[in-house]
Amino acid sequence: IWETLIRWTITLKMLKFSLWLLLIILANQVLSRPNFVLIFADDVGYGDFQSYGHPTQERGPIDDLAAEGMRFTQWYSAASLCTPSRAALLTGRLPIHSGMVGPTRVLHQNDAGGLPKNETTLAEALKELGYKTGMVGKWHLGINELKQNDGRHLPKHHGFDFVGTNLPFTFHLFCSPSETHYKSSVTNTKIVKIPAKHISVFLGGTLAKLCLIELLWNLIHIVVTTNMLLNPNQQYVPKYPVDKMKIKCFLSNKDEIIEQPIIPEKLTDKIVEGAKQFITENQKNPFFLYLSLPQTHVAMFCKEEFCNKSMRGSYGDNVNEMSWAVGEVVNQLKDLNLDQNTLVMFLSDHGPAVEFCYTGGSTGGLKGGKASSWDGGIKVPAVAWWPGTIQPGVKTQVVSTMDIFPTFLQLAGNEGNNGNLDGMSISDLLLSNHDNEVHEILFHYCSDRLMAVRYGRYKIHFHTQHLHVFNSNCIDGKALENIVDYFDCYANTTTHNPPLIFDINTDPEELFPLEAAPRAHIIEEVEKQVAKHQKTIKPVASQLGRHGKDLQPCCNPPSCVCNYPNPDKRKTEL
Amino acid sequence: IWETLIRWTITLKMLKFSLWLLLIILANQVLSRPNFVLIFADDVGYGDFQSYGHPTQERGPIDDLAAEGMRFTQWYSAASLCTPSRAALLTGRLPIHSGMVGPTRVLHQNDAGGLPKNETTLAEALKELGYKTGMVGKWHLGINELKQNDGRHLPKHHGFDFVGTNLPFTFHLFCSPSETHYKSSVTNTKIVKIPAKHISVFLGGTLAKLCLIELLWNLIHIVVTTNMLLNPNQQYVPKYPVDKMKIKCFLSNKDEIIEQPIIPEKLTDKIVEGAKQFITENQKNPFFLYLSLPQTHVAMFCKEEFCNKSMRGSYGDNVNEMSWAVGEVVNQLKDLNLDQNTLVMFLSDHGPAVEFCYTGGSTGGLKGGKASSWDGGIKVPAVAWWPGTIQPGVKTQVVSTMDIFPTFLQLAGNEGNNGNLDGMSISDLLLSNHDNEVHEILFHYCSDRLMAVRYGRYKIHFHTQHLHVFNSNCIDGKALENIVDYFDCYANTTTHNPPLIFDINTDPEELFPLEAAPRAHIIEEVEKQVAKHQKTIKPVASQLGRHGKDLQPCCNPPSCVCNYPNPDKRKTEL
Repeated sequence: IWETLIRWTITLKMLKFSLWLLLIILANQVLSRPNFVLIFADDVGYGDFQSYGHPTQERGPIDDLAAEGMRFTQWYSAASLCTPSRAALLTGRLPIHSGMVGPTRVLHQNDAGGLPKNETTLAEALKELGYKTGMVGKWHLGINELKQNDGRHLPKHHGFDFVGTNLPFTFHLFCSPSETHYKSSVTNTKIVKIPAKHISVFLGGTLAKLCLIELLWNLIHIVVTTNMLLNPNQQYVPKYPVDKMKIKCFLSNKDEIIEQPIIPEKLTDKIVEGAKQFITENQKNPFFLYLSLPQTHVAMFCKEEFCNKSMRGSYGDNVNEMSWAVGEVVNQLKDLNLDQNTLVMFLSDHGPAVEFCYTGGSTGGLKGGKASSWDGGIKVPAVAWWPGTIQPGVKTQVVSTMDIFPTFLQLAGNEGNNGNLDGMSISDLLLSNHDNEVHEILFHYCSDRLMAVRYGRYKIHFHTQHLHVFNSNCIDGKALENIVDYFDCYANTTTHNPPLIFDINTDPEELFPLEAAPRAHIIEEVEKQVAKHQKTIKPVASQLGRHGKDLQPCCNPPSCVCNYPNPDKRKTEL
Repeated sequence: IWETLIRWTITLKMLKFSLWLLLIILANQVLSRPNFVLIFADDVGYGDFQSYGHPTQERGPIDDLAAEGMRFTQWYSAASLCTPSRAALLTGRLPIHSGMVGPTRVLHQNDAGGLPKNETTLAEALKELGYKTGMVGKWHLGINELKQNDGRHLPKHHGFDFVGTNLPFTFHLFCSPSETHYKSSVTNTKIVKIPAKHISVFLGGTLAKLCLIELLWNLIHIVVTTNMLLNPNQQYVPKYPVDKMKIKCFLSNKDEIIEQPIIPEKLTDKIVEGAKQFITENQKNPFFLYLSLPQTHVAMFCKEEFCNKSMRGSYGDNVNEMSWAVGEVVNQLKDLNLDQNTLVMFLSDHGPAVEFCYTGGSTGGLKGGKASSWDGGIKVPAVAWWPGTIQPGVKTQVVSTMDIFPTFLQLAGNEGNNGNLDGMSISDLLLSNHDNEVHEILFHYCSDRLMAVRYGRYKIHFHTQHLHVFNSNCIDGKALENIVDYFDCYANTTTHNPPLIFDINTDPEELFPLEAAPRAHIIEEVEKQVAKHQKTIKPVASQLGRHGKDLQPCCNPPSCVCNYPNPDKRKTEL
């Protein structure tokens, strides 16, 4: 009897201990799940920060994050323009899989398309794991679908419980009331002022002729390409519908338009306020904040304390205001003692719009810029900050914006990759568990066209976009025209056969092409991998390019002018 | 009587106190005079370090200095090639004043010229203030004057008491025993291998014709320009005597040639050893060490532990080996408890030799490179480190290599500028006493030709060098030819009237020229200052371009091969 009693006691004690252990493990797992603050900037170039080598940009809180956290030097966006890059960020998948590609390459204000509902967003996936989800700032993944102001593509339909001040489209050229940063048409008097050596008159004439041919070409193609199924072999000739953009910019909150046109000098404050509110309200829960900043997309804008302060000029002012906003959010985390338990990531959506001259940002010497698959278009500044957990340092591994989805999921306790993702978890890299390379190959698309791949230290270009000729478009630091031809993935490109090879580790500026013949085995291996990859691409409906005048958002028809600082005074439902 | 006695006592006490005070002040002044370690690199580009934004260059001790010290982002060399830049460093004066300019732009191994004895070097000036002076590494300010191995231009004749392993010329193309990094002649078979799209056959033909014309032109000019008096209006057409360079590289110590040809894998060790020896021997005195590194001038070389280690390739290996050497010297200062009392400065002599492709360094996106007056040729990485005295941070003020002379002198207790200097003391900037701009105007010369000026935020180009066309010279990352035409200050240049204006603070890459007309007042003011400056230029003898075959250094004629590890086994007197 005694023996049995002792045995029972021991067993009971062990059971009790085991239960305790289990509880501790579970509690720890729940407690150790970090919050995520994902800060995404617009058009910020690889070379735009002091921490990335800019000679005259002032140091700001983003540089502090870079110094205290992990700074990445070979971080690639999944696309070189806003809409596909943002789709890839929130889905962990190449835009070609979700249909966020097409002739226009980005969604416009009056587009019917948007991020498909069958795509699982990072917000939805984290929500399922018990996270509170919020977003503030720029969206650019669709607005209306069936009628004006139905808002069926807005963030609240993609897993975001909280939506702060939201910029459903972009802070673009026509958002600035003064429009001083952009001349919408090239006048003859302007051209006359250009010194003869800076512009080729012959080139001007040729361009005019090409424009006429392209106009006809486009008319045919707009009819053909609308709502067509995507196919990797399909060729589009897109055109940016500039005339459609001459519409008033607007802000919304979760449900409605709250400001039209935008008051630029108050924009950053509103975004910061929303981010702080979400963090404060959810400080007791694990949360995911997607903070999508309007900087530094043209037009330039600023709140008073940042205007005309940067030694670099208005672009520098914009960088400083953006960096201040990041600092405000980080300070809020510190004030609430959340900084040790929050992973903050800052990165840009793609390269800078160099065609805008003084207001176009810097690639830091990388070739090309926004819209191109040269590294200047897709290599972005990226920083991960998590005091006490992420060690300060620099990482040179090739990583992708698509890696954020599986990384956050893994850190939140999920396996991370369900097999449908193109991204891979970099949590081991972040936590310094190893220093291995992550991707064997990365695919660089322009819309539905595979332009290039990154394969180890090599970048292999099948097609390249032509480079900007600044001299003919930039007069006195200002752009004469929005060179939308460079948005094209098929026209204004060169096809390379054999492909153009660069060793990016040695030649990050893509200056010195390597001979193809001695590297035939590399090209062969890459072509195999490309073929394997292309088999995974299923035709899906293109979401881009189905415009409708009746879908143009408007808060107060027909004037489309409103400003509702007080949500109770709602006048227009989305 | 009592009153008088008290008065006397007080007076005596005051006198005693005053004497004490005087002694303390004097002692303090002597004690607080820092040591100086001036580290000068060869051909390192603005974008070559991780701390200056390079994406794949490994972090090294130089980056540590940058993080712990003051990093400059607008530091200008006084010239875009070695000899004049080094002359300006050691004299604080523009090379046009000292005669260290001329058709060849640099001194060659068999030149009779050198830094004139009437120029006061930083070593001489500091020696007068009680400093011990030493130099180790590359010199390039002259070797022999009257006969082979007289060594009349070597460092010991310019104020350096200690001379460690000295590279009187340069670690250049022919120093590498393998010569694998450079093909000295373009063979037809090589050209055939270039893909048609990478080289214009037409261009090749034109170049050939131009070469013939230039050859004749040069023959006339070599006769005319030899030993002529310098005049700012004088035009030279220099040519790099490549055939004269096919001679064995050598090392010397204070008195004699100790190694010919150079054993590259041992070079850095020897230099580090010399630097450490000087510091150790002089730890009780205030000292000035001029540590002039051979990296990263072509050819590439490495000691075993650094070979094939950098992810960037051989250039990265060279940067890492250089950075290691700097770290060794800094560690020696720490080991001897001298770091708190030593100002360490690291900077490059000018921009990188981009024409050498993979082994040519990076400007970090700045235009041009070595030999040009585009910012890529003259803006250099520069760091000042003095723990406890210099606060960590970044400075964007426009400063010059010529500022080191008056700065060191001022910190050593001297007034600093005797009126003959072009440099200005930046000691207030280093000690964070103020943050004002230092120079109203900086003159950018190419030999004796004023190419451009930096005036506030503006750079104003009167003449610009043509840019390298990489595609036709770089095959598989290797250079076909040393494009010495780019060394020219008169041929291969464009004259701008009105001058070309860039806002460097906004546009550091010099991409967007500004219209001249609205800035006529700026140009006018600059032209006034240029005229005033040019009045200060007195004709002096050019030191460059007087070659003599009999002046070619040779340790052991006629073989010119020797290696004397033990100084006691001297065989040849210089």
